[in-house]
Amino acid sequence: MNMWTNGLPRLELLSEEQVESIHETAMRALEETGLDILYEPTLELVRRAGLKVEGNRVLFDRGFVTEAVSKAPASFNVRGRNPDMSFTIGGEHLVTCPTGGAPFIADLDGGRRPGSVKDYIDLVKLTHSSPQIHCIDSGIVETMELPVETRSLDMDYLVIRYTDKPYMSSGASDRSAADCLEMAAILFGGRDEIEETPSVIAVVNPASPLVWDDRMLGSIHQFAAANQPILVTPFLMAGTTAPVTMAGGLAQWVAETLAGIAIIQTIRPGCPSVFGGYLTGTDMMLGQPTLGSPEWSMGILAGAQLARRYGLPFRGGGGWSSSKIVDAQAGYEAVMGLWPVLLGGVNFVLHAAGALESTMIVSPEKMVMDFEILRILEWILDPGLPVDDDTLALNTIAEVGPGGMYLAASHTLSHFRDAVYRPELSSLEDLSRWQESGSKDTAVRAHEIYKQTLESYEDPGLDPAVDEALQGFIAKRKEELGA
Amino acid sequence: MNMWTNGLPRLELLSEEQVESIHETAMRALEETGLDILYEPTLELVRRAGLKVEGNRVLFDRGFVTEAVSKAPASFNVRGRNPDMSFTIGGEHLVTCPTGGAPFIADLDGGRRPGSVKDYIDLVKLTHSSPQIHCIDSGIVETMELPVETRSLDMDYLVIRYTDKPYMSSGASDRSAADCLEMAAILFGGRDEIEETPSVIAVVNPASPLVWDDRMLGSIHQFAAANQPILVTPFLMAGTTAPVTMAGGLAQWVAETLAGIAIIQTIRPGCPSVFGGYLTGTDMMLGQPTLGSPEWSMGILAGAQLARRYGLPFRGGGGWSSSKIVDAQAGYEAVMGLWPVLLGGVNFVLHAAGALESTMIVSPEKMVMDFEILRILEWILDPGLPVDDDTLALNTIAEVGPGGMYLAASHTLSHFRDAVYRPELSSLEDLSRWQESGSKDTAVRAHEIYKQTLESYEDPGLDPAVDEALQGFIAKRKEELGA
Repeated sequence: MNMWTNGLPRLELLSEEQVESIHETAMRALEETGLDILYEPTLELVRRAGLKVEGNRVLFDRGFVTEAVSKAPASFNVRGRNPDMSFTIGGEHLVTCPTGGAPFIADLDGGRRPGSVKDYIDLVKLTHSSPQIHCIDSGIVETMELPVETRSLDMDYLVIRYTDKPYMSSGASDRSAADCLEMAAILFGGRDEIEETPSVIAVVNPASPLVWDDRMLGSIHQFAAANQPILVTPFLMAGTTAPVTMAGGLAQWVAETLAGIAIIQTIRPGCPSVFGGYLTGTDMMLGQPTLGSPEWSMGILAGAQLARRYGLPFRGGGGWSSSKIVDAQAGYEAVMGLWPVLLGGVNFVLHAAGALESTMIVSPEKMVMDFEILRILEWILDPGLPVDDDTLALNTIAEVGPGGMYLAASHTLSHFRDAVYRPELSSLEDLSRWQESGSKDTAVRAHEIYKQTLESYEDPGLDPAVDEALQGFIAKRKEELGA
Repeated sequence: MNMWTNGLPRLELLSEEQVESIHETAMRALEETGLDILYEPTLELVRRAGLKVEGNRVLFDRGFVTEAVSKAPASFNVRGRNPDMSFTIGGEHLVTCPTGGAPFIADLDGGRRPGSVKDYIDLVKLTHSSPQIHCIDSGIVETMELPVETRSLDMDYLVIRYTDKPYMSSGASDRSAADCLEMAAILFGGRDEIEETPSVIAVVNPASPLVWDDRMLGSIHQFAAANQPILVTPFLMAGTTAPVTMAGGLAQWVAETLAGIAIIQTIRPGCPSVFGGYLTGTDMMLGQPTLGSPEWSMGILAGAQLARRYGLPFRGGGGWSSSKIVDAQAGYEAVMGLWPVLLGGVNFVLHAAGALESTMIVSPEKMVMDFEILRILEWILDPGLPVDDDTLALNTIAEVGPGGMYLAASHTLSHFRDAVYRPELSSLEDLSRWQESGSKDTAVRAHEIYKQTLESYEDPGLDPAVDEALQGFIAKRKEELGA
């Protein structure tokens, strides 16, 4: 299994009473205001479950929601085609996934441009090679030269082809979800196989406030029927898609997410479902989310706490940045969204690496920077700060003594390779050494690491029979879809 | 009073048993190995207290240390010459202080150069103007054109002259500490006055491992006799000045710090004493500290926990960076050292802003960047995430309803000015707006804010009689010292 275990205490930002106030507000919003459900099969489902439906408006009874949500597992395994890469989502575990969904890529070589198949493959290779990344989003960048109707087929194929880590599908509609599931079934040996063990992760978002649309519900029905993990993830901006005050945003978050998970559990009880989401401030003048802001950090901590209230795994946080380039803002904003991942006990962090310009672009240099941040955080979890007779080193303190030097102590020599973190990207040299090596800033050094990583990429290969079957399926579907 | 109050739960990295193991190791190091004390008045003092002394080596009996340390207050007030700027060190409070001690300054105008009086004044004006800064270090940059023998007189004068916030003295020897205390007495109305209420903060560092030298002990004797707050601050590098394993580093930290505080309390029982320090990894190839590393973050959290063990205020953390410029590394390293300040419940954070190149240089652009990070962290403390009927906004959720827009809601209009954080430095604009305004990176924008801040600096003034008395004292001392 390939994931982190987070034994740190959880930072509880909210008191128990505050959690219950938010819960109560969410329940009243579900019962009294309800949600718009823009998909007939879902309306049919909730009608049969006895909910009150008027037009598209559904009032979600709290008894129904609570009962349904209680069927979701607290944690579950997701397999990779390399079994060593499988992981657990939930409990004390933390799984990282790079950014997804960006239409553009920007790097120091080629500048900012629409994503291409070549860029896509390079990014999969880069993230496949990073030990700090556990899962890869098949939407790691859009492949803009491919026809949009069948693009998700190609993107799912490419992520399957170039990594053996578990993946998230970019398919987000009834049709593309069905195709994605067919491909996962081909990869893992049939529909029964994938229903048995989760094999491809889906992500769905409500149209906040309080709407679930047909595309997302189509995707939910497909993935839930196949028992695949679904990350239910509102993106809430205080003052535009959510109340301007955070407490109200949290209540709406709970309402939207639990409604989604209740639908999933009604379709397929026990289907792996993740309480996900983001809550951020809004710059009212610019209409932009305030990533890296206090709201951003507090939203991660509070969201994680609410997910625990419902016994659900939590998805949140990430190295998001509003910056357009890999500069100081990109650095501090990334940590503002990643430290709380550890503190809150987040279970799945999408956009853990590579996101810039509020996720409009993916940047391989930013990705390398985020890998360094993730390595630092990983080290805090493991090895952390072990305390035992050997690490307390009383005899070494005595041996070196006042005014002595630890460098040559045998305790130092036997530990310095494993006891101390060594950065891969950060420059620790003094000024003259740094100047001698070209006065390179972080982005330039990250670019070099990016290129070196591509060169040393080790192809995990793909079973030729599976490869052929996948390509055959894609060709057939493209023909059927007239692409 | 001007400081933050940190109501967040403390992140306890160590178990109680681990804290006790570290304590026990420290006590044994104090008793069995001891420290070298390179100052005759201190040797005299500890001999009289009954400690075993052989040459310069002093074995610190744990009964003596524990008893002495217990006399230090858990918290205390420090006054500014503007009473509104006074603050409390200890308890739930957090006080920020910019970097100090850098011989060089670097900014986008003038590049990297030795610090000057003009730079010094500009930096005091910049930090005086920041609401995120509570205390100013009179060593904010070295004034390299002034004679080194009397430089601390001028630097103390300049910090007194250009800010009315409390200050830390750069004086660190018997003689310069005495001068510093004379100046504080002039400023606050006499020696009795300053002994009554702490008025100038001192910082002292052991020569790790386990040595207190004559300069630092000279300073300790002066400041302790005057009842001024002393920050006792080892800088420990794992594998060079401390054991390579963190637990041993923590034990040595406790031993060195408690020995220092025990000396202070023996000179003047009740003298405000702060458990301070840093523990970081070392890059063995470069001989450099690994700032922003896991050791760096964990050292802050563990150090704070140990200080609580002894009922002492804690100094630690800061926006340190090894980077030579204000780039992405400077951004992420700064947060790696500042988030743990909140999490650990640090009481005094020196180097909170402006430090680059491992504190070899002070950068006003880095300072402005750190102000933004500090503003974000401050907002997490206050207002934080208030939960009440108004912020839960149930009626607003109902009023806006599914598919609605919060922008025009009266709840939004009445709250958007105060409920949502607005950055001063971070760029939230979309790409085209950012390009239209010149595609400025963080450092360039920070530089502009720096220059604007200098222009809008409001001189707090200084009582002409006090000013004259201070200048008279300095002139007299310069003559006496032959400068």
